[in-house]
Amino acid sequence: MKRVHNFSAGPAVLPVEVLEQAAAEMLVYQNSGMSVMEMSHRSKVFDKIIKEAEADLRELMNIPDNYKVLFLQGGGHTQFAMVPLNLMKNKVADYIVTGQWAKKAYKEATKYLKANKIASSEDKNFSYIPDLNNLDINPNSDYVYICENNTIYGTKFSKLPETNGKILVSDMSSCILSEPVDVTNYGLIFAGAQKNIGPAGTTIVIIREDLLTDDVPDFTPTMLQYKIHADKESLYNTPPTYGIYICGLVFKHLLKLGGVNEIYKKNLEKANLLYDYLDNSKLFRGTVAKQDRSLMNVTFVTDDEEINNRFIKEADQAGLVNLKGHRSVGGMRASIYNALPIESVKALVDFMSDFERKILDES
Amino acid sequence: MKRVHNFSAGPAVLPVEVLEQAAAEMLVYQNSGMSVMEMSHRSKVFDKIIKEAEADLRELMNIPDNYKVLFLQGGGHTQFAMVPLNLMKNKVADYIVTGQWAKKAYKEATKYLKANKIASSEDKNFSYIPDLNNLDINPNSDYVYICENNTIYGTKFSKLPETNGKILVSDMSSCILSEPVDVTNYGLIFAGAQKNIGPAGTTIVIIREDLLTDDVPDFTPTMLQYKIHADKESLYNTPPTYGIYICGLVFKHLLKLGGVNEIYKKNLEKANLLYDYLDNSKLFRGTVAKQDRSLMNVTFVTDDEEINNRFIKEADQAGLVNLKGHRSVGGMRASIYNALPIESVKALVDFMSDFERKILDES
Repeated sequence: MKRVHNFSAGPAVLPVEVLEQAAAEMLVYQNSGMSVMEMSHRSKVFDKIIKEAEADLRELMNIPDNYKVLFLQGGGHTQFAMVPLNLMKNKVADYIVTGQWAKKAYKEATKYLKANKIASSEDKNFSYIPDLNNLDINPNSDYVYICENNTIYGTKFSKLPETNGKILVSDMSSCILSEPVDVTNYGLIFAGAQKNIGPAGTTIVIIREDLLTDDVPDFTPTMLQYKIHADKESLYNTPPTYGIYICGLVFKHLLKLGGVNEIYKKNLEKANLLYDYLDNSKLFRGTVAKQDRSLMNVTFVTDDEEINNRFIKEADQAGLVNLKGHRSVGGMRASIYNALPIESVKALVDFMSDFERKILDES
Repeated sequence: MKRVHNFSAGPAVLPVEVLEQAAAEMLVYQNSGMSVMEMSHRSKVFDKIIKEAEADLRELMNIPDNYKVLFLQGGGHTQFAMVPLNLMKNKVADYIVTGQWAKKAYKEATKYLKANKIASSEDKNFSYIPDLNNLDINPNSDYVYICENNTIYGTKFSKLPETNGKILVSDMSSCILSEPVDVTNYGLIFAGAQKNIGPAGTTIVIIREDLLTDDVPDFTPTMLQYKIHADKESLYNTPPTYGIYICGLVFKHLLKLGGVNEIYKKNLEKANLLYDYLDNSKLFRGTVAKQDRSLMNVTFVTDDEEINNRFIKEADQAGLVNLKGHRSVGGMRASIYNALPIESVKALVDFMSDFERKILDES
């Protein structure tokens, strides 16, 4: 019944304390006489769960009062349609394409409006963040879209694009709550919970109130209108109640650890440990432009595909799992989200050092 | 830490054995070294979970090979849009309106096609199922839509409408797996999991393969195309992995109990116990036409609103919870889904008998 070191890119590792509490409360939540899975989303006890989850997230991210927090379903893919459907006025939007997810979002948007790729790093398989100076923002643009951390490639925007006053929309699925952000820089932030927060099936949307509108195309499915969900405080329909409960436990856990500033320090420590090792290794190297490195997803390779595969296999046998890189990049990827303990990163670096020594000895 | 008798209409009671297993496996699932919440939806271990869930549901419902089983998100409300978007050809569909959910489905469909209300029981607040003989099925109808069990009102179709060969679409959210059905009578069945299966946030769709099409309107969000999900076996995007796992545990539990035929016997026993009491009570009476009574949701009243409220309150204090009827019907509702033990129904009938005696003594 031993837990492994889990470097999964998502769904991903959760805090042990949260899982222990969830297990302890599985049959009876507090004095409700039932599991959170078994309670009406309109009950007082669930109302408290969802309200506290929202309040705690607001505290963690310092979300201003003029932003709504929504707990939705459908993941990032549903957001790819909801963003254009709800924000389009001039039917023009600008996309910065830094990976597969931004590209899919761009493609979905072309169903509804004129989407412009104003920057892309596809020429080098998305291994860097493109130059954000002098972007060709369309004067009629309804919004500028970014995927702020690129899980597959291990890149992260180190600064935000200058949008000339246009609304910035950010997919923060794989970096939300990993470091402090100024929410006022954004019109809309969304994140699938399954990377840095909780279980798959809950999507968090943070949207500036003035962007909520009834003025959506006639063909917009009711469930894809932000305003419907905002007006009903995420209870227009039955939300993913158990997922929201787990997200709430994670938020409380983060607050207990000291909030996002403290988490950020821990994340820097973890990432530096791994990147420093990579930068000094004679076997492994990072695949990403240094200034664009992600704090959450560390991609690396050796120059030999066979050695990559051997590494992944031997690491797995040693209890360091899910280190295989995404098929579109190859090599290795260690996702080191908030909930991954520093001990796991240390164990990885130790294992990599030993492996490196062994390989260099063999050659 | 005592569990109550939980008559919630949904999210609703789950089998204790399932919750116990989920709690025991929360930190480490089998020999995976991680929680089901923490594993990649593309991992071998999760692949086994979702494939077994599907196989078990196929066995339970005797689903033919020419039907696909999908695990989606967004609940019934998302289906209200997906059904017309994916099934429309002539842009005409017929709706039998037996409650709030069928009405909402009808309304959503009017965004996309000419929806005809071919029957309705709204004249008597949906307290019966309308006459299904000589329905005015449109010769061009793309499908006929029903909500087979009406949670709010406590009604259930005791036979299916004659559709003149048109595709029958059924919302089975609150009756799926409660009694045997012949899947071949339907083109499409959907059910939110949160009533008779598992946690909120998982939606099950059973669709005949020939209805899967790429020929949907250009504006259809990718996530709302059945064929996209069918082609990728519910892994087009990250599905609600933990919810699917719990559904799978419930399916195995039902198989262990002897399958749907055995469950149906138990459900009849539970419902008869309660309906028989109601039919002989001098205080309480059922609100629904007898031939249209639901096996899952039993609605009842006294003729005095104050006594209704007192009953709900005293029952709650006695550990019989969530008996308040939906606001649009008033009175009381006992939802007695598959997972509700017969002991809970017996406890309810005993409590009602005592309460009745007390009230009659007082008057």
